[in-house]
Amino acid sequence: MSYLISPIKNGGITSPKKFLAGAINCSIKSNNLKKDDLTLIHSLNPTTCSGTFTTNKIKAAPVKVSISHLRGGDIRSIIANSGNANACNGAKGIEDARIMTQKVAKHFQLRRRQILVASTGIIGMPLPIEKIEDKIPTLCEKISDTPGSSLDSAKAIMTSDTRPKQGAYEIKLKGGKKIKIGAIAKGAGMICPNMATMLCFITTDAKIDRRLLQSATTQAVRNTFNRITIDGDTSTNDTVFVMANGAAQNNTIKAGSPLDSAFREALTKIMDDMARKIVSDGEKVTKFVEIEVRGARTISDAQKVAESVAKSTLVKCSWNGSDPNWGRVIHAVGNSDANINEELIDIYFDGIAATHNGMATKTSIQTLEKVTKKKHFTVTIDLNQGSREHTIYTTDYSPEFIRYNAEEYALAVQTKANQNK
Amino acid sequence: MSYLISPIKNGGITSPKKFLAGAINCSIKSNNLKKDDLTLIHSLNPTTCSGTFTTNKIKAAPVKVSISHLRGGDIRSIIANSGNANACNGAKGIEDARIMTQKVAKHFQLRRRQILVASTGIIGMPLPIEKIEDKIPTLCEKISDTPGSSLDSAKAIMTSDTRPKQGAYEIKLKGGKKIKIGAIAKGAGMICPNMATMLCFITTDAKIDRRLLQSATTQAVRNTFNRITIDGDTSTNDTVFVMANGAAQNNTIKAGSPLDSAFREALTKIMDDMARKIVSDGEKVTKFVEIEVRGARTISDAQKVAESVAKSTLVKCSWNGSDPNWGRVIHAVGNSDANINEELIDIYFDGIAATHNGMATKTSIQTLEKVTKKKHFTVTIDLNQGSREHTIYTTDYSPEFIRYNAEEYALAVQTKANQNK
Repeated sequence: MSYLISPIKNGGITSPKKFLAGAINCSIKSNNLKKDDLTLIHSLNPTTCSGTFTTNKIKAAPVKVSISHLRGGDIRSIIANSGNANACNGAKGIEDARIMTQKVAKHFQLRRRQILVASTGIIGMPLPIEKIEDKIPTLCEKISDTPGSSLDSAKAIMTSDTRPKQGAYEIKLKGGKKIKIGAIAKGAGMICPNMATMLCFITTDAKIDRRLLQSATTQAVRNTFNRITIDGDTSTNDTVFVMANGAAQNNTIKAGSPLDSAFREALTKIMDDMARKIVSDGEKVTKFVEIEVRGARTISDAQKVAESVAKSTLVKCSWNGSDPNWGRVIHAVGNSDANINEELIDIYFDGIAATHNGMATKTSIQTLEKVTKKKHFTVTIDLNQGSREHTIYTTDYSPEFIRYNAEEYALAVQTKANQNK
Repeated sequence: MSYLISPIKNGGITSPKKFLAGAINCSIKSNNLKKDDLTLIHSLNPTTCSGTFTTNKIKAAPVKVSISHLRGGDIRSIIANSGNANACNGAKGIEDARIMTQKVAKHFQLRRRQILVASTGIIGMPLPIEKIEDKIPTLCEKISDTPGSSLDSAKAIMTSDTRPKQGAYEIKLKGGKKIKIGAIAKGAGMICPNMATMLCFITTDAKIDRRLLQSATTQAVRNTFNRITIDGDTSTNDTVFVMANGAAQNNTIKAGSPLDSAFREALTKIMDDMARKIVSDGEKVTKFVEIEVRGARTISDAQKVAESVAKSTLVKCSWNGSDPNWGRVIHAVGNSDANINEELIDIYFDGIAATHNGMATKTSIQTLEKVTKKKHFTVTIDLNQGSREHTIYTTDYSPEFIRYNAEEYALAVQTKANQNK
């Protein structure tokens, strides 16, 4: 038995039943900006909830608080702000993150531990907690289940993102019932395997127990978000939450059942959509490149080679110039500590052979350039030593990327100056 | 007993006795360029010789040939070209590298295995071996022991370097004798711990046996070239050679003797000079930054933290904007897999505390900026967990760096077009 999985047009986190969302402006970054910077996602039903977090050893306060709250179960809301990461703020940071959850809990007459919290933005500046606290009651009042509310939420978590990111899928069940899964995400800077400065909040009305939901989440994250890289860094705040509230009234999903497979597939699809959107919207990115490694002896070798190529600064620069420079690619292959044999390596650009047995093929540069001039192409590296594979999505580096990152600081200082006024 | 070690003004590879050098133009890159691109270094006496090579698993043909030749002993010459890396050229590459050594050997009536070879430049294009072969006899005739010859050699190995790099030291012995050590080097792109696209050729008139020379070389490389990073990549061609010809007529250096210590110190000094010159001349670099990690539990932890910070793209971008952004630094610390404790981390810019116990100090941004606006400064990260230390030299990333690397390709294609004319 298999299930039909299809995307929901203009879907988002309010597509699944009994989920509300909304956003508000607290002027976290500056009094001059009128952009919403605080969002709330709320389930009217009790939930099971899963999460995955940054592997960076420096974890922001909201990450620490949410890890602890997740253990309690029956999560009802996610409160999240942009403009300030609430990282490296010591005991005050933890207190501020707790205050955010407390304020939401109070409004809905819940326990603090039923609320998750996330932040994204600059590191090492105290959160303007009073501004946030003041707006939480109004935000709690204004949330709704309209598609517009999901879009507002997606916009409120944006930092250097240029576009809001959301989507939804549905799984058709027997008898006309449907399970829906919706997501919003933000990314842009610091996107790298093992997560990144990346937030993704997923809602589903599936009925599923917590252990199975966590297992499906971990698997889907491994196959999607942990495969993306823009600049090789991971952040202090990366977070994926999945809330399942059972409002679809399906029979509880059983481990190993066809519905379990369908649910995992749909969850992976929505995360893959978000991952692709994040990479495409990387800071000042002009190319989206899939690095596909084949023929590795082990999965670990395939991963090492893919990461070495995807993270190589010189490879990423060459793509910015639409350069089919397989020399830089093979040299990045050699830089990984995977088992490789130079004389066996084949490299393809969108299936066209650039390198065979570690040497240039007769394909003309003009032919290869037709591929690398595209905005989206695939580089396949066949190690010809086994049957293991791994794929990573990556991007180029542009001069604008460096300038943007060098100048972001001036903006942050300006923001701080405004705050102190 | 200790020895006086002092720099030799305008010194280079011809400062030690009985070494000759010189360079010639073979038009390897293009017929239009009149720049010398082939150099020869030759000892009139028999030598002992040591070498260290790239850790990249893809090794260029000259690296493979030289590793084999080094085993034989009594090396007399180094022949090296710029403009073409002779990497990824299969059996033809090996044959071409051998031809270079053979042609030199023939002129001096030596065996091919007494000649070392090195190349630097573009990967995956056949070496224009006929052009090189034609010029080798003239080059062998024109080498000399003048300071100008050393400078000519230093210039001939330059690729994207903007300045030739050379230097020399002398160790004063009893009775007026001196041991001299001279070096030329090239670097610029792809400089990274574990070597890089970097060539360094060192001559010395010390009398020292091969095992001790190799041990001193390995130690000095570990403390100098393996600590520099510009863009996180290592190349297919990195090579350090040290030739010792005994012309100083010292008593053979004994392992563990004071003269052994002095020789190691001088060798480290000359390599440190070359490493600093390479980093300062990194492609489109505007900052030279020393990353000093202290208080680590193990050397390996100190290294991991230093490398994670030195290689972080976002940290390197922030320096381009003279941004004392300790938030990016601490997040790169957290990205390493070293043992760290966020609450113990202190960060200093030229000794001024930016971060104490993982949080911002009260030092103003303006005060920190006075440091980061300088061309050369030190970032100290104290993990406060032990007594181990490690230092790496690194640089910023500039928009010009990306542009240069993106556009280099267009130049290479142009070169190839010229060659085919």
